[in-house]
Amino acid sequence: MKILIIGATGTIGQAVIGALSPRHDIVAASRSSAGFPVDITRHDSVQALFERVGRVDAIVSTAGGLHFGPLSTMTAAQFNVGLQDKLLGQVDLALTGQHFLNDGGSITLTSGIVAEEPIASGANASAVNAALDGFVRGAAVELARGIRINVVSPNVLQESMGVYGPFFPGFEAVPASRVALAYVRSVEGVQTGRVYKVW
Amino acid sequence: MKILIIGATGTIGQAVIGALSPRHDIVAASRSSAGFPVDITRHDSVQALFERVGRVDAIVSTAGGLHFGPLSTMTAAQFNVGLQDKLLGQVDLALTGQHFLNDGGSITLTSGIVAEEPIASGANASAVNAALDGFVRGAAVELARGIRINVVSPNVLQESMGVYGPFFPGFEAVPASRVALAYVRSVEGVQTGRVYKVW
Ligand SMILES: NC(=O)c1ccc[n+]([C@@H]2O[C@H](COP(=O)([O-])OP(=O)(O)OC[C@H]3O[C@@H](n4cnc5c(N)ncnc54)[C@H](OP(=O)(O)O)[C@@H]3O)[C@@H](O)[C@H]2O)c1
Ligand SMILES: NC(=O)c1ccc[n+]([C@@H]2O[C@H](COP(=O)([O-])OP(=O)(O)OC[C@H]3O[C@@H](n4cnc5c(N)ncnc54)[C@H](OP(=O)(O)O)[C@@H]3O)[C@@H](O)[C@H]2O)c1
Repeated sequence: MKILIIGATGTIGQAVIGALSPRHDIVAASRSSAGFPVDITRHDSVQALFERVGRVDAIVSTAGGLHFGPLSTMTAAQFNVGLQDKLLGQVDLALTGQHFLNDGGSITLTSGIVAEEPIASGANASAVNAALDGFVRGAAVELARGIRINVVSPNVLQESMGVYGPFFPGFEAVPASRVALAYVRSVEGVQTGRVYKVW
Repeated sequence: MKILIIGATGTIGQAVIGALSPRHDIVAASRSSAGFPVDITRHDSVQALFERVGRVDAIVSTAGGLHFGPLSTMTAAQFNVGLQDKLLGQVDLALTGQHFLNDGGSITLTSGIVAEEPIASGANASAVNAALDGFVRGAAVELARGIRINVVSPNVLQESMGVYGPFFPGFEAVPASRVALAYVRSVEGVQTGRVYKVW
Protein backbone atom coordinates (compact mmCIF):
# COMPACT_ATOMS: atom_id res chain seq x y z
CA MET A 1 0.00 0.00 0.00
CA LYS A 2 0.95 3.64 -0.48
CA ILE A 3 0.47 5.24 2.95
CA LEU A 4 0.57 8.97 3.72
CA ILE A 5 1.58 9.72 7.32
CA ILE A 6 1.04 13.26 8.63
CA GLY A 7 3.05 13.89 11.82
CA ALA A 8 5.80 11.60 10.58
CA THR A 9 8.60 13.17 12.62
CA GLY A 10 6.78 12.82 15.95
CA THR A 11 7.17 10.29 18.75
CA ILE A 12 4.11 8.33 17.61
CA GLY A 13 4.67 9.01 13.90
CA GLN A 14 8.17 7.53 14.01
CA ALA A 15 6.92 4.38 15.74
CA VAL A 16 4.10 3.98 13.21
CA ILE A 17 6.56 4.31 10.34
CA GLY A 18 8.74 1.69 12.00
CA ALA A 19 5.79 -0.72 12.13
CA LEU A 20 4.42 -0.07 8.62
CA SER A 21 7.47 0.62 6.43
CA PRO A 22 8.66 -3.02 6.12
CA ARG A 23 5.50 -3.87 4.11
CA HIS A 24 4.38 -0.54 2.60
CA ASP A 25 5.48 2.60 0.73
CA ILE A 26 5.47 5.51 3.17
CA VAL A 27 5.01 9.19 2.27
CA ALA A 28 6.17 11.11 5.34
CA ALA A 29 4.59 14.55 5.86
CA SER A 30 4.87 17.03 8.72
CA ARG A 31 4.88 20.75 9.39
CA SER A 32 8.63 21.16 8.92
CA SER A 33 9.14 18.43 6.31
CA ALA A 34 11.31 19.40 3.32
CA GLY A 35 9.62 17.00 0.91
CA PHE A 36 6.00 17.01 2.10
CA PRO A 37 5.36 20.06 4.27
CA VAL A 38 1.83 20.65 5.57
CA ASP A 39 0.14 22.80 8.19
CA ILE A 40 -3.10 20.98 9.03
CA THR A 41 -4.59 24.15 10.52
CA ARG A 42 -4.77 25.66 6.98
CA HIS A 43 -7.10 24.08 4.44
CA ASP A 44 -5.13 25.34 1.44
CA SER A 45 -2.06 23.59 2.85
CA VAL A 46 -3.95 20.30 3.34
CA GLN A 47 -5.36 20.50 -0.20
CA ALA A 48 -1.88 21.21 -1.63
CA LEU A 49 -0.38 18.22 0.21
CA PHE A 50 -2.91 15.80 -1.27
CA GLU A 51 -2.49 17.24 -4.77
CA ARG A 52 1.26 16.78 -4.47
CA VAL A 53 1.02 13.22 -3.09
CA GLY A 54 -1.77 12.01 -5.39
CA ARG A 55 -3.85 8.91 -4.76
CA VAL A 56 -3.08 6.80 -1.69
CA ASP A 57 -4.35 3.62 -0.03
CA ALA A 58 -4.18 4.86 3.54
CA ILE A 59 -3.97 8.17 5.42
CA VAL A 60 -2.55 8.12 8.94
CA SER A 61 -2.51 11.25 11.11
CA THR A 62 -0.35 11.46 14.23
CA ALA A 63 -0.33 15.28 14.26
CA GLY A 64 -2.08 18.05 16.13
CA GLY A 65 -1.66 20.48 18.99
CA LEU A 66 -3.87 21.15 22.03
CA HIS A 67 -4.20 23.86 24.66
CA PHE A 68 -3.12 22.73 28.11
CA GLY A 69 -3.82 25.05 31.05
CA PRO A 70 -5.93 25.55 34.17
CA LEU A 71 -9.69 25.84 33.67
CA SER A 72 -9.89 28.81 36.06
CA THR A 73 -8.03 31.08 33.63
CA MET A 74 -8.88 29.38 30.33
CA THR A 75 -10.35 31.62 27.62
CA ALA A 76 -12.50 30.74 24.61
CA ALA A 77 -9.63 31.86 22.35
CA GLN A 78 -7.22 29.42 24.05
CA PHE A 79 -9.78 26.63 23.85
CA ASN A 80 -10.16 27.32 20.13
CA VAL A 81 -6.47 26.48 19.57
CA GLY A 82 -7.13 22.78 20.05
CA LEU A 83 -10.34 22.99 18.02
CA GLN A 84 -8.50 24.49 15.04
CA ASP A 85 -5.36 22.31 15.31
CA LYS A 86 -5.76 18.73 16.56
CA LEU A 87 -9.53 18.56 15.92
CA LEU A 88 -10.35 20.51 12.74
CA GLY A 89 -6.87 19.82 11.32
CA GLN A 90 -7.37 16.05 11.50
CA VAL A 91 -11.02 16.31 10.41
CA ASP A 92 -9.83 18.24 7.35
CA LEU A 93 -7.31 15.47 6.56
CA ALA A 94 -10.32 13.10 6.51
CA LEU A 95 -12.73 15.40 4.63
CA THR A 96 -10.18 16.34 1.98
CA GLY A 97 -8.38 13.00 1.98
CA GLN A 98 -11.52 10.93 1.26
CA HIS A 99 -11.35 12.22 -2.33
CA PHE A 100 -7.73 11.08 -2.77
CA LEU A 101 -8.17 7.54 -1.38
CA ASN A 102 -8.35 4.46 -3.58
CA ASP A 103 -11.39 2.18 -3.17
CA GLY A 104 -11.16 0.22 0.07
CA GLY A 105 -8.66 2.70 1.52
CA SER A 106 -8.54 3.87 5.13
CA ILE A 107 -8.14 6.92 7.34
CA THR A 108 -6.63 6.62 10.84
CA LEU A 109 -6.64 9.60 13.21
CA THR A 110 -5.22 10.11 16.73
CA SER A 111 -7.13 11.08 19.89
CA GLY A 112 -6.03 10.11 23.45
CA ILE A 113 -7.03 8.69 26.83
CA VAL A 114 -7.88 12.13 28.27
CA ALA A 115 -11.16 11.93 26.30
CA GLU A 116 -12.44 9.62 29.02
CA GLU A 117 -9.93 9.96 31.86
CA PRO A 118 -9.60 13.66 32.75
CA ILE A 119 -6.37 15.21 34.02
CA ALA A 120 -5.49 18.60 35.53
CA SER A 121 -5.27 21.35 32.88
CA GLY A 122 -6.81 18.95 30.37
CA ALA A 123 -10.33 20.28 29.64
CA ASN A 124 -9.38 21.16 26.05
CA ALA A 125 -7.74 17.77 25.54
CA SER A 126 -10.81 15.96 26.92
CA ALA A 127 -13.10 17.83 24.53
CA VAL A 128 -10.88 17.53 21.44
CA ASN A 129 -10.08 13.84 21.93
CA ALA A 130 -13.74 12.98 22.60
CA ALA A 131 -14.72 14.95 19.49
CA LEU A 132 -12.32 12.90 17.36
CA ASP A 133 -13.77 9.65 18.75
CA GLY A 134 -17.26 10.98 17.92
CA PHE A 135 -16.26 12.20 14.45
CA VAL A 136 -14.98 8.77 13.50
CA ARG A 137 -18.25 7.14 14.60
CA GLY A 138 -20.19 9.70 12.55
CA ALA A 139 -18.00 9.60 9.43
CA ALA A 140 -17.71 5.79 9.24
CA VAL A 141 -21.40 5.38 8.38
CA GLU A 142 -21.14 7.72 5.38
CA LEU A 143 -17.79 7.02 3.70
CA ALA A 144 -18.19 5.68 0.15
CA ARG A 145 -16.28 3.09 -1.96
CA GLY A 146 -15.43 0.85 1.00
CA ILE A 147 -13.31 3.51 2.64
CA ARG A 148 -12.85 2.96 6.39
CA ILE A 149 -12.05 5.38 9.22
CA ASN A 150 -10.78 4.68 12.76
CA VAL A 151 -9.03 6.55 15.55
CA VAL A 152 -6.25 5.43 17.88
CA SER A 153 -6.62 6.64 21.48
CA PRO A 154 -3.22 6.20 23.18
CA ASN A 155 -2.46 6.27 26.87
CA VAL A 156 0.48 8.52 27.74
CA LEU A 157 3.62 7.14 26.08
CA GLN A 158 6.61 5.90 28.05
CA GLU A 159 8.75 7.96 25.64
CA SER A 160 6.80 11.13 26.60
CA MET A 161 6.86 10.70 30.39
CA GLY A 162 9.75 13.16 30.72
CA VAL A 163 7.47 15.92 29.39
CA TYR A 164 3.93 14.82 30.35
CA GLY A 165 4.61 12.56 33.34
CA PRO A 166 3.54 14.99 36.10
CA PHE A 167 0.09 15.33 34.46
CA PHE A 168 -0.48 11.55 34.41
CA PRO A 169 -0.02 10.29 37.99
CA GLY A 170 -0.58 6.55 38.19
CA PHE A 171 -1.36 6.15 34.49
CA GLU A 172 0.19 2.99 33.02
CA ALA A 173 2.40 4.55 30.34
CA VAL A 174 2.64 2.47 27.17
CA PRO A 175 5.61 2.04 24.81
CA ALA A 176 5.33 3.72 21.37
CA SER A 177 5.85 0.32 19.76
CA ARG A 178 2.63 -0.94 21.35
CA VAL A 179 0.70 2.19 20.29
CA ALA A 180 1.99 1.64 16.74
CA LEU A 181 0.27 -1.77 16.63
CA ALA A 182 -3.14 -0.09 16.83
CA TYR A 183 -2.36 1.90 13.67
CA VAL A 184 -1.34 -1.34 11.92
CA ARG A 185 -4.61 -2.91 13.04
CA SER A 186 -6.57 0.03 11.60
CA VAL A 187 -4.66 0.20 8.29
CA GLU A 188 -4.35 -3.52 7.55
CA GLY A 189 -7.54 -4.69 9.32
CA VAL A 190 -11.18 -4.60 8.24
CA GLN A 191 -13.04 -2.58 10.89
CA THR A 192 -14.47 0.93 10.62
CA GLY A 193 -15.83 3.52 13.07
CA ARG A 194 -13.65 2.05 15.82
CA VAL A 195 -11.82 3.79 18.66
CA TYR A 196 -8.72 1.65 19.27
CA LYS A 197 -7.90 2.32 22.91
CA VAL A 198 -4.31 1.55 23.85
CA TRP A 199 -5.10 1.57 27.59
CA MET B 1 -32.03 29.89 43.04
CA LYS B 2 -31.35 32.53 40.39
CA ILE B 3 -30.95 30.56 37.17
CA LEU B 4 -29.72 31.94 33.83
CA ILE B 5 -31.04 29.98 30.83
CA ILE B 6 -29.43 30.61 27.43
CA GLY B 7 -31.60 29.31 24.57
CA ALA B 8 -34.74 30.16 26.55
CA THR B 9 -37.04 30.54 23.51
CA GLY B 10 -36.19 27.09 22.08
CA THR B 11 -38.11 23.82 22.19
CA ILE B 12 -35.92 22.47 24.99
CA GLY B 13 -35.41 25.87 26.67
CA GLN B 14 -39.17 26.40 27.04
CA ALA B 15 -39.61 22.96 28.59
CA VAL B 16 -36.75 23.57 31.02
CA ILE B 17 -38.25 26.90 32.07
CA GLY B 18 -41.57 25.13 32.60
CA ALA B 19 -39.90 22.64 34.92
CA LEU B 20 -37.72 25.08 36.90
CA SER B 21 -39.76 28.30 37.13
CA PRO B 22 -42.20 27.13 39.85
CA ARG B 23 -39.30 26.94 42.33
CA HIS B 24 -36.68 29.39 40.99
CA ASP B 25 -36.05 32.86 39.55
CA ILE B 26 -35.37 32.50 35.83
CA VAL B 27 -33.32 34.90 33.68
CA ALA B 28 -34.23 34.03 30.09
CA ALA B 29 -31.54 34.78 27.46
CA SER B 30 -31.38 34.01 23.75
CA ARG B 31 -30.06 35.43 20.51
CA SER B 32 -33.16 37.48 19.73
CA SER B 33 -34.18 38.25 23.33
CA ALA B 34 -35.14 41.87 24.02
CA GLY B 35 -34.09 41.80 27.69
CA PHE B 36 -31.08 39.47 27.67
CA PRO B 37 -29.74 39.13 24.12
CA VAL B 38 -26.59 37.06 23.57
CA ASP B 39 -24.75 35.52 20.64
CA ILE B 40 -22.75 32.66 22.14
CA THR B 41 -20.43 32.56 19.11
CA ARG B 42 -18.98 35.94 20.20
CA HIS B 43 -17.02 36.15 23.44
CA ASP B 44 -17.70 39.88 23.93
CA SER B 45 -21.42 39.11 23.78
CA VAL B 46 -21.11 36.29 26.35
CA GLN B 47 -19.08 38.52 28.66
CA ALA B 48 -21.63 41.35 28.31
CA LEU B 49 -24.51 39.00 29.16
CA PHE B 50 -22.92 37.88 32.42
CA GLU B 51 -22.02 41.44 33.40
CA ARG B 52 -25.61 42.45 32.83
CA VAL B 53 -27.08 39.48 34.73
CA GLY B 54 -24.61 39.49 37.63
CA ARG B 55 -24.10 36.60 40.01
CA VAL B 56 -26.24 33.49 39.55
CA ASP B 57 -26.69 30.08 41.19
CA ALA B 58 -27.05 28.07 37.99
CA ILE B 59 -26.30 28.44 34.29
CA VAL B 60 -28.29 26.30 31.84
CA SER B 61 -27.52 26.29 28.13
CA THR B 62 -29.99 24.88 25.60
CA ALA B 63 -28.50 26.83 22.67
CA GLY B 64 -26.21 26.15 19.79
CA GLY B 65 -26.19 25.41 16.07
CA LEU B 66 -24.54 22.59 14.12
CA HIS B 67 -23.68 21.87 10.48
CA PHE B 68 -25.79 19.08 8.98
CA GLY B 69 -24.83 17.78 5.54
CA PRO B 70 -23.37 14.83 3.65
CA LEU B 71 -19.80 13.87 4.46
CA SER B 72 -18.89 13.50 0.77
CA THR B 73 -19.16 17.26 0.18
CA MET B 74 -18.45 18.55 3.70
CA THR B 75 -15.71 21.19 3.98
CA ALA B 76 -13.55 22.17 6.92
CA ALA B 77 -15.22 25.59 6.91
CA GLN B 78 -18.68 24.00 7.22
CA PHE B 79 -17.44 21.69 9.99
CA ASN B 80 -16.11 24.73 11.84
CA VAL B 81 -19.64 26.18 12.09
CA GLY B 82 -20.60 23.62 14.72
CA LEU B 83 -17.24 24.01 16.47
CA GLN B 84 -17.71 27.79 16.83
CA ASP B 85 -21.43 27.70 17.69
CA LYS B 86 -22.74 24.72 19.71
CA LEU B 87 -19.30 23.64 20.96
CA LEU B 88 -17.17 26.74 21.64
CA GLY B 89 -20.29 28.82 22.35
CA GLN B 90 -21.35 26.55 25.19
CA VAL B 91 -17.76 26.08 26.39
CA ASP B 92 -17.45 29.87 26.60
CA LEU B 93 -20.65 30.02 28.68
CA ALA B 94 -18.89 27.65 31.11
CA LEU B 95 -15.44 29.32 31.01
CA THR B 96 -16.83 32.82 31.44
CA GLY B 97 -19.76 31.79 33.60
CA GLN B 98 -17.63 30.03 36.25
CA HIS B 99 -16.55 33.49 37.47
CA PHE B 100 -20.17 34.68 37.91
CA LEU B 101 -21.44 31.61 39.81
CA ASN B 102 -22.06 31.61 43.53
CA ASP B 103 -20.32 28.92 45.62
CA GLY B 104 -21.94 25.54 45.04
CA GLY B 105 -23.49 26.70 41.76
CA SER B 106 -23.86 24.63 38.63
CA ILE B 107 -23.44 24.69 34.86
CA THR B 108 -25.60 22.47 32.62
CA LEU B 109 -24.90 22.21 28.88
CA THR B 110 -26.65 20.36 26.04
CA SER B 111 -25.17 17.71 23.71
CA GLY B 112 -27.24 14.93 22.04
CA ILE B 113 -27.61 11.25 21.22
CA VAL B 114 -25.76 11.59 17.89
CA ALA B 115 -22.51 11.67 19.90
CA GLU B 116 -22.80 7.90 20.21
CA GLU B 117 -25.49 6.92 17.70
CA PRO B 118 -24.49 8.29 14.28
CA ILE B 119 -27.04 9.42 11.67
CA ALA B 120 -26.78 10.38 7.98
CA SER B 121 -25.37 13.89 7.49
CA GLY B 122 -24.43 13.95 11.17
CA ALA B 123 -20.61 13.81 11.34
CA ASN B 124 -20.41 17.35 12.70
CA ALA B 125 -23.11 16.64 15.27
CA SER B 126 -21.36 13.45 16.39
CA ALA B 127 -18.08 15.32 16.91
CA VAL B 128 -19.58 18.39 18.62
CA ASN B 129 -21.86 16.42 20.95
CA ALA B 130 -19.06 14.02 21.91
CA ALA B 131 -16.78 17.02 22.54
CA LEU B 132 -19.32 18.52 24.95
CA ASP B 133 -19.57 15.22 26.83
CA GLY B 134 -15.76 15.15 27.01
CA PHE B 135 -15.48 18.81 28.06
CA VAL B 136 -17.80 18.27 31.00
CA ARG B 137 -15.73 15.29 32.20
CA GLY B 138 -12.57 17.40 31.89
CA ALA B 139 -13.97 20.58 33.48
CA ALA B 140 -15.69 18.87 36.42
CA VAL B 141 -12.37 17.85 38.01
CA GLU B 142 -11.09 21.45 38.03
CA LEU B 143 -14.02 23.68 38.95
CA ALA B 144 -13.52 25.52 42.26
CA ARG B 145 -15.83 26.54 45.16
CA GLY B 146 -18.05 23.46 44.85
CA ILE B 147 -19.24 24.44 41.38
CA ARG B 148 -20.60 21.49 39.39
CA ILE B 149 -20.92 20.90 35.63
CA ASN B 150 -23.04 18.37 33.74
CA VAL B 151 -24.41 17.91 30.24
CA VAL B 152 -27.81 16.65 29.09
CA SER B 153 -27.71 14.40 26.01
CA PRO B 154 -31.27 14.23 24.62
CA ASN B 155 -32.65 11.77 22.13
CA VAL B 156 -34.58 13.44 19.28
CA LEU B 157 -37.63 15.21 20.74
CA GLN B 158 -41.19 14.28 19.87
CA GLU B 159 -41.80 18.02 19.39
CA SER B 160 -38.99 18.14 16.77
CA MET B 161 -39.97 15.08 14.72
CA GLY B 162 -41.66 17.24 12.09
CA VAL B 163 -38.28 18.77 11.25
CA TYR B 164 -35.72 16.08 12.20
CA GLY B 165 -37.82 12.90 11.92
CA PRO B 166 -36.43 11.65 8.56
CA PHE B 167 -32.88 11.71 10.02
CA PHE B 168 -33.84 9.56 13.04
CA PRO B 169 -35.47 6.37 11.69
CA GLY B 170 -36.49 4.06 14.50
CA PHE B 171 -35.22 6.35 17.25
CA GLU B 172 -37.55 6.46 20.26
CA ALA B 173 -38.39 10.18 20.31
CA VAL B 174 -38.80 11.61 23.82
CA PRO B 175 -41.16 14.36 25.01
CA ALA B 176 -39.57 17.72 25.93
CA SER B 177 -41.07 17.39 29.41
CA ARG B 178 -38.98 14.26 30.00
CA VAL B 179 -35.81 15.92 28.67
CA ALA B 180 -36.46 18.84 31.04
CA LEU B 181 -36.27 16.48 34.03
CA ALA B 182 -32.57 15.85 33.30
CA TYR B 183 -31.86 19.58 33.60
CA VAL B 184 -33.72 19.65 36.94
CA ARG B 185 -31.62 16.67 38.08
CA SER B 186 -28.43 18.51 37.14
CA VAL B 187 -29.40 21.87 38.69
CA GLU B 188 -31.01 20.63 41.91
CA GLY B 189 -28.98 17.42 42.32
CA VAL B 190 -25.46 16.84 43.64
CA GLN B 191 -23.50 15.13 40.85
CA THR B 192 -20.79 16.58 38.62
CA GLY B 193 -19.04 15.52 35.42
CA ARG B 194 -22.12 13.54 34.40
CA VAL B 195 -23.62 13.01 30.95
CA TYR B 196 -27.37 12.66 31.58
CA LYS B 197 -28.55 10.57 28.65
CA VAL B 198 -32.28 10.89 27.95
CA TRP B 199 -32.30 7.75 25.75
N1 LIG C 1 2.90 11.43 23.27
C1 LIG C 1 1.92 11.00 24.05
O1 LIG C 1 2.10 10.54 25.20
C2 LIG C 1 0.51 11.03 23.51
C3 LIG C 1 -0.50 10.33 24.19
C4 LIG C 1 -1.80 10.38 23.70
C5 LIG C 1 -2.08 11.13 22.55
N2 LIG C 1 -1.07 11.79 21.91
C6 LIG C 1 -1.41 12.57 20.71
O2 LIG C 1 -0.72 12.04 19.60
C7 LIG C 1 -0.37 13.08 18.69
C8 LIG C 1 1.12 13.01 18.40
O3 LIG C 1 1.83 13.07 19.63
P1 LIG C 1 3.43 13.00 19.65
O4 LIG C 1 3.84 12.92 21.08
O5 LIG C 1 3.91 11.97 18.67
O6 LIG C 1 3.75 14.49 19.10
P2 LIG C 1 5.17 15.09 18.65
O7 LIG C 1 6.29 14.17 18.99
O8 LIG C 1 5.19 16.49 19.18
O9 LIG C 1 5.03 15.13 17.04
C9 LIG C 1 4.02 15.90 16.45
C10 LIG C 1 4.08 15.64 14.96
O10 LIG C 1 2.99 16.33 14.34
C11 LIG C 1 3.50 17.32 13.45
N3 LIG C 1 2.62 18.50 13.57
C12 LIG C 1 2.31 19.20 14.69
N4 LIG C 1 1.46 20.20 14.40
C13 LIG C 1 1.25 20.13 13.06
C14 LIG C 1 0.50 20.91 12.13
N5 LIG C 1 -0.24 21.97 12.53
N6 LIG C 1 0.50 20.55 10.82
C15 LIG C 1 1.21 19.48 10.41
N7 LIG C 1 1.97 18.72 11.22
C16 LIG C 1 1.98 19.05 12.54
C17 LIG C 1 4.92 17.58 13.85
O11 LIG C 1 5.63 18.03 12.71
P3 LIG C 1 7.07 18.81 12.83
O12 LIG C 1 7.98 17.91 13.64
O13 LIG C 1 7.49 18.92 11.40
O14 LIG C 1 6.76 20.12 13.51
C18 LIG C 1 5.34 16.16 14.28
O15 LIG C 1 5.59 15.38 13.13
C19 LIG C 1 -0.82 14.40 19.36
O16 LIG C 1 -2.06 14.77 18.82
C20 LIG C 1 -0.98 14.02 20.81
O17 LIG C 1 -2.01 14.77 21.45
C21 LIG C 1 0.20 11.75 22.36
N1 LIG D 1 -34.73 19.31 19.36
C1 LIG D 1 -34.16 18.08 19.40
O1 LIG D 1 -34.77 17.06 18.99
C2 LIG D 1 -32.79 17.95 19.99
C3 LIG D 1 -32.30 16.68 20.30
C4 LIG D 1 -31.00 16.55 20.84
C5 LIG D 1 -30.24 17.70 21.05
N2 LIG D 1 -30.75 18.92 20.74
C6 LIG D 1 -29.90 20.10 20.96
O2 LIG D 1 -30.52 20.95 21.90
C7 LIG D 1 -30.22 22.31 21.62
C8 LIG D 1 -31.52 23.09 21.56
O3 LIG D 1 -32.38 22.46 20.62
P1 LIG D 1 -33.84 23.04 20.34
O4 LIG D 1 -34.53 22.09 19.43
O5 LIG D 1 -34.48 23.44 21.62
O6 LIG D 1 -33.45 24.37 19.49
P2 LIG D 1 -34.37 25.56 19.01
O7 LIG D 1 -35.82 25.30 19.28
O8 LIG D 1 -33.95 25.91 17.63
O9 LIG D 1 -33.93 26.78 20.00
C9 LIG D 1 -32.61 27.22 20.00
C10 LIG D 1 -32.45 28.25 21.11
O10 LIG D 1 -31.09 28.64 21.18
C11 LIG D 1 -30.96 30.01 20.87
N3 LIG D 1 -29.75 30.19 20.07
C12 LIG D 1 -29.41 29.59 18.91
N4 LIG D 1 -28.20 29.99 18.51
C13 LIG D 1 -27.77 30.89 19.43
C14 LIG D 1 -26.59 31.67 19.56
N5 LIG D 1 -25.60 31.63 18.65
N6 LIG D 1 -26.49 32.47 20.64
C15 LIG D 1 -27.48 32.52 21.57
N7 LIG D 1 -28.61 31.80 21.49
C16 LIG D 1 -28.75 31.01 20.43
C17 LIG D 1 -32.23 30.41 20.16
O11 LIG D 1 -32.47 31.80 20.37
P3 LIG D 1 -33.44 32.68 19.45
O12 LIG D 1 -34.79 31.96 19.42
O13 LIG D 1 -33.52 33.98 20.14
O14 LIG D 1 -32.80 32.75 18.06
C18 LIG D 1 -33.25 29.52 20.87
O15 LIG D 1 -33.58 30.10 22.12
C19 LIG D 1 -29.44 22.31 20.30
O16 LIG D 1 -28.05 22.41 20.58
C20 LIG D 1 -29.73 20.95 19.71
O17 LIG D 1 -28.63 20.45 18.93
C21 LIG D 1 -32.00 19.07 20.22
